[in-house]
Amino acid sequence: MKIVCLGSGNVATHLAVAFRKAGIEIAQVWSRNMVHAAELATAVDSTPIDDLGAVDQSAYMYLIAVKDDAIESVAAALKGVNGLVVHTSGATSIEVLKEFKNSGVLYPLQTFSKGKVLDLTKCPFCLEANSAAAYLILEKTASAISSALHKVDSAQRKTLHLAAVFACNFSNHLYHLANTILAANNLQFDLLRPLIMETALKVQDDLPVRVQTGPAIRNDESTMNDHIKLLSGSPELQELYESLSKSIKKTG
Amino acid sequence: MKIVCLGSGNVATHLAVAFRKAGIEIAQVWSRNMVHAAELATAVDSTPIDDLGAVDQSAYMYLIAVKDDAIESVAAALKGVNGLVVHTSGATSIEVLKEFKNSGVLYPLQTFSKGKVLDLTKCPFCLEANSAAAYLILEKTASAISSALHKVDSAQRKTLHLAAVFACNFSNHLYHLANTILAANNLQFDLLRPLIMETALKVQDDLPVRVQTGPAIRNDESTMNDHIKLLSGSPELQELYESLSKSIKKTG
Repeated sequence: MKIVCLGSGNVATHLAVAFRKAGIEIAQVWSRNMVHAAELATAVDSTPIDDLGAVDQSAYMYLIAVKDDAIESVAAALKGVNGLVVHTSGATSIEVLKEFKNSGVLYPLQTFSKGKVLDLTKCPFCLEANSAAAYLILEKTASAISSALHKVDSAQRKTLHLAAVFACNFSNHLYHLANTILAANNLQFDLLRPLIMETALKVQDDLPVRVQTGPAIRNDESTMNDHIKLLSGSPELQELYESLSKSIKKTG
Repeated sequence: MKIVCLGSGNVATHLAVAFRKAGIEIAQVWSRNMVHAAELATAVDSTPIDDLGAVDQSAYMYLIAVKDDAIESVAAALKGVNGLVVHTSGATSIEVLKEFKNSGVLYPLQTFSKGKVLDLTKCPFCLEANSAAAYLILEKTASAISSALHKVDSAQRKTLHLAAVFACNFSNHLYHLANTILAANNLQFDLLRPLIMETALKVQDDLPVRVQTGPAIRNDESTMNDHIKLLSGSPELQELYESLSKSIKKTG
């Protein structure tokens, strides 16, 4: 039972390390960049390659963890393999792998950073496969690294990916905007860190709509007007403040 | 050394409980609503009152933790007391307490929920007072419940409060919008919870601008176009998606 890992970025690294820790052999790590391939290969006792022609044909799973727009070309180079060919993209349909007898998707719903070790055992993984047999193999393999497995088809996965943009990418950007407001007033981001943690913690066992606080949900027009005035130097922040507040008021 | 607590909402409750735990006596808990006053008074071994005329005149601190628009009227009823009169509002100037010899502000930068016990020892508290002497008293008292004390004037505090709206209230609303997208596709909010936690964790020892991920920061127009199409049922979500993505692209 061995996996070939195609890619050496954040997702490839976190998955390869997790599989290796679970006792699954990573036969090869491919990257366009040999230095990157070697770096990850070293971490998972594997062999680095930078030539797709050199991919081991006998692996039971090929894990394509590359940028969305590179999946198709990497997959094309794997043509003819018997193993399960899997990509890890939230935004890409399983259709991109339709040339393969056994194909699937293993999408971890998490945000990965280089250099930060993450416990994946509770990370939700969205699984899809082109046959019941392929699904069983995929599920068995994924269960080695996580207990939060969900059967999710390509359409649902696209929706999930979109929801993740709101919950993660956009939230992080709001943290950044908050920091620009602080920095302009000689205040440290440290002041907001406990608040940010608690905001995320509150929705771990409740729904966000039930724990919404702030001037918009209480229809506190006076505070909102003060805030708009404070933002007079930035029409962009004013506009975001107004549209997000309007959206919150609708939920009240 | 005893405190009179004016208010019985989330902030009043969390602060009164923390002070009591730190060994400081809560002489009285006042609320317009006697049932609420009694509830909190019971929790902190105090005496409930619903008549501002019955406030103990000899307390060393009066903690006004009521809604912003009620601070002025509660303060008016305390006229003549010698103790330190303090409010807990982020959005309200210390000027509202200018009739008092000793006044201050004790603003906890945190989101409080009823029924959820919070460790306040690392919660940032923003302190302001109308004199050096009053500041010393306030600082000494606040140090009993938190080690993260910051001297912040009224103008800075307003800015902080605004930044907190972005980091907390708006983020929570984005969690909610993400959940509406999931719900419309029969997907559970559970799928997003680990991602939300990790997004908040990532900025605990880094700056958000350094850990931004997602299609906007990579200028992935194809994914963004797909997302806009997926949101075709909701012009409001489309507009938010576009303005937040535009704002992220500017930071890249």
